[in-house]
Amino acid sequence: MTTNERTGDATSEVESGEEEEVLGGGELAAHLIKSGITRNEMIAAITNRLHAEAMASLPPNVRRRIRALRTLQKEFADIESKFYLEVHALECKYERMYKPLLEKRAQIVSGAYEPNDAECVNPWRDESEEEELARAVQNAAIAEGEEKKEEKEPAEPPMDPNVKGIPDFWYTIFKNVSMLCEMMQEHDEPIIKCLQDIKVQMFEDPIGFTLEFHFLPNDYFTNTVLTKEYSMKCKPDEENPLEFEGPEIYSCKGCEINWKKGKNVTVKTIKKKQKHKSRGSVRTVTKSVQADSFFNFFAPPQMPDDPNSTLASDTQALLTADFEVGHYIRERVVSRAVLLYTGEGLDEDDDDDYEEEEDSYSDEDSGTEEVSDAED
Amino acid sequence: MTTNERTGDATSEVESGEEEEVLGGGELAAHLIKSGITRNEMIAAITNRLHAEAMASLPPNVRRRIRALRTLQKEFADIESKFYLEVHALECKYERMYKPLLEKRAQIVSGAYEPNDAECVNPWRDESEEEELARAVQNAAIAEGEEKKEEKEPAEPPMDPNVKGIPDFWYTIFKNVSMLCEMMQEHDEPIIKCLQDIKVQMFEDPIGFTLEFHFLPNDYFTNTVLTKEYSMKCKPDEENPLEFEGPEIYSCKGCEINWKKGKNVTVKTIKKKQKHKSRGSVRTVTKSVQADSFFNFFAPPQMPDDPNSTLASDTQALLTADFEVGHYIRERVVSRAVLLYTGEGLDEDDDDDYEEEEDSYSDEDSGTEEVSDAED
Repeated sequence: MTTNERTGDATSEVESGEEEEVLGGGELAAHLIKSGITRNEMIAAITNRLHAEAMASLPPNVRRRIRALRTLQKEFADIESKFYLEVHALECKYERMYKPLLEKRAQIVSGAYEPNDAECVNPWRDESEEEELARAVQNAAIAEGEEKKEEKEPAEPPMDPNVKGIPDFWYTIFKNVSMLCEMMQEHDEPIIKCLQDIKVQMFEDPIGFTLEFHFLPNDYFTNTVLTKEYSMKCKPDEENPLEFEGPEIYSCKGCEINWKKGKNVTVKTIKKKQKHKSRGSVRTVTKSVQADSFFNFFAPPQMPDDPNSTLASDTQALLTADFEVGHYIRERVVSRAVLLYTGEGLDEDDDDDYEEEEDSYSDEDSGTEEVSDAED
Repeated sequence: MTTNERTGDATSEVESGEEEEVLGGGELAAHLIKSGITRNEMIAAITNRLHAEAMASLPPNVRRRIRALRTLQKEFADIESKFYLEVHALECKYERMYKPLLEKRAQIVSGAYEPNDAECVNPWRDESEEEELARAVQNAAIAEGEEKKEEKEPAEPPMDPNVKGIPDFWYTIFKNVSMLCEMMQEHDEPIIKCLQDIKVQMFEDPIGFTLEFHFLPNDYFTNTVLTKEYSMKCKPDEENPLEFEGPEIYSCKGCEINWKKGKNVTVKTIKKKQKHKSRGSVRTVTKSVQADSFFNFFAPPQMPDDPNSTLASDTQALLTADFEVGHYIRERVVSRAVLLYTGEGLDEDDDDDYEEEEDSYSDEDSGTEEVSDAED
């Protein structure tokens, strides 16, 4: 399930209408500062310029040979793209081999299958520490329960020892993995608790994959499966063939969620005060706007039909982030779910227990809007 | 040439002789602070502990099912290791397909082959900008030359337009790529200027690769090829099978460099003042010690024969860095040399033009050493 295929950055070059001027390093810096770019962008631009000047100062016959090396590099990229297609085909083949394991995992998580004793032995692990910790935690809970009794408060009911499967398996993964946790809002949590499995379907030609989110019947929507489809390409770009680095996600498609009445967490109602421009009277209107929610993942920005058209930069940023999430779920979450559940397999980046919390989500918004005319 | 195989970190767990104590979060933090670990290590330790406590607080039947999922995850890793072996076999196959291209590149670089016009066309590139820049650079050089003439100083001779191949091709790459530039000392530079090619030989069983550094006959050593051999493994570790992430470099072997007399840049002579403990007399002794040099790359720390023995932490750090360099040269440098030469293919991390320069290398060292006895 893993090769280094990159998530596309969905950026496209911004072409400037200005004519190219030949500027020296100092002039270039001044020119760049005026154009309001960041320090890092400026450093990159100056570095590129210095490299270009170094190349330009070479004798023409040497520059000619460098062009010949670029031609070879293009041939290299063409062969490399075939390598990556073969790797992708291997991934499709292995996905079929992983399937029985992932199916069994889903059955253990849901409680449909109870593993036998032999299946529950991890010979490489020292269980004694966990057992000791379990006893300590249990004793602490009992002590706390007794204290609470003294205070006449009811102790929280202990988890039912006859519980089926592994409760909140995927929900816990969402909580543990920072990329997913950041997407999940408070109002999403009861829905994510109904998430029973995430599956990947790989496609060989054209290359791509679909993520399937399987849900228990729930109070929020009638779908049992939500899907997100990613299309990939594995060909050097015609205009920048030497930048080829392997397969890339280039577009994605969500699915329609059939929300039950009043349950759509992806919209919120905001109240706005509108002031009449001439009369000065104020009225309050309610508007439906998009609310933060993990489920916006299934309604990504529309891709333009013309692949050469440029996207607005905020749309580009949204798509880049979306491709990263899709790639990450396929690459790390589905294949290593139990390790993200227990915390054993969390990278430093996955785990945001100690990151600063973002401002908590607020469902109500308000503001004053000035309108030039409005019926009373 | 590219999959996500990782460079091993050559670390091994340090076993503590102390018995495990069950500590609460606060006690744990106090305990950890006393042991002098870094803040990040402490956060990681506490996070691990919180995850472990969360697991320990689950009912025994749920913990049993989690063990069953770990067993499945181990089976997953076993299948995955076969996937990575197949990918490695593909890499060996493609290495043979890349070979004619890389051979031709070497011939163009050395001047053994002069490309024809058709080979020097890069249809995806706009050459006009480069041409314009070349004219501007040339004019600036002429103007500078005239100015210098007026000052009666001789102008620097322009590069010979009849120059063979691409001079300083690999040396320029070493200069451009920060990882290599940091290893190259001033005294290494004239030797690296004799570097004519870097080749990779892949091995399928057991998996691994050798980097070959091909040199022109030079004043420094008699070898024409210096080699560095990397051995890889692609099997889940028996003690930590779930940490498997694909092929890993686990050991490397350098080669003997036959330095010409007085030309060994990897040793330096230092003068030390020694003070006689009782008599107080001072004498100066000279000692040969290892000098910083890229060529230490061919004399990596010895790996212990017993793979289970633990390495000193500084040796571990050296090997980890070495594996990263070897991996990087194979993965990025050999396959994309021209792009690192021109600067087109440099990542932000590759390019350290604007990083702070490290203290310049000093060849002489001095210090005072106290010895208990020394013949006069």
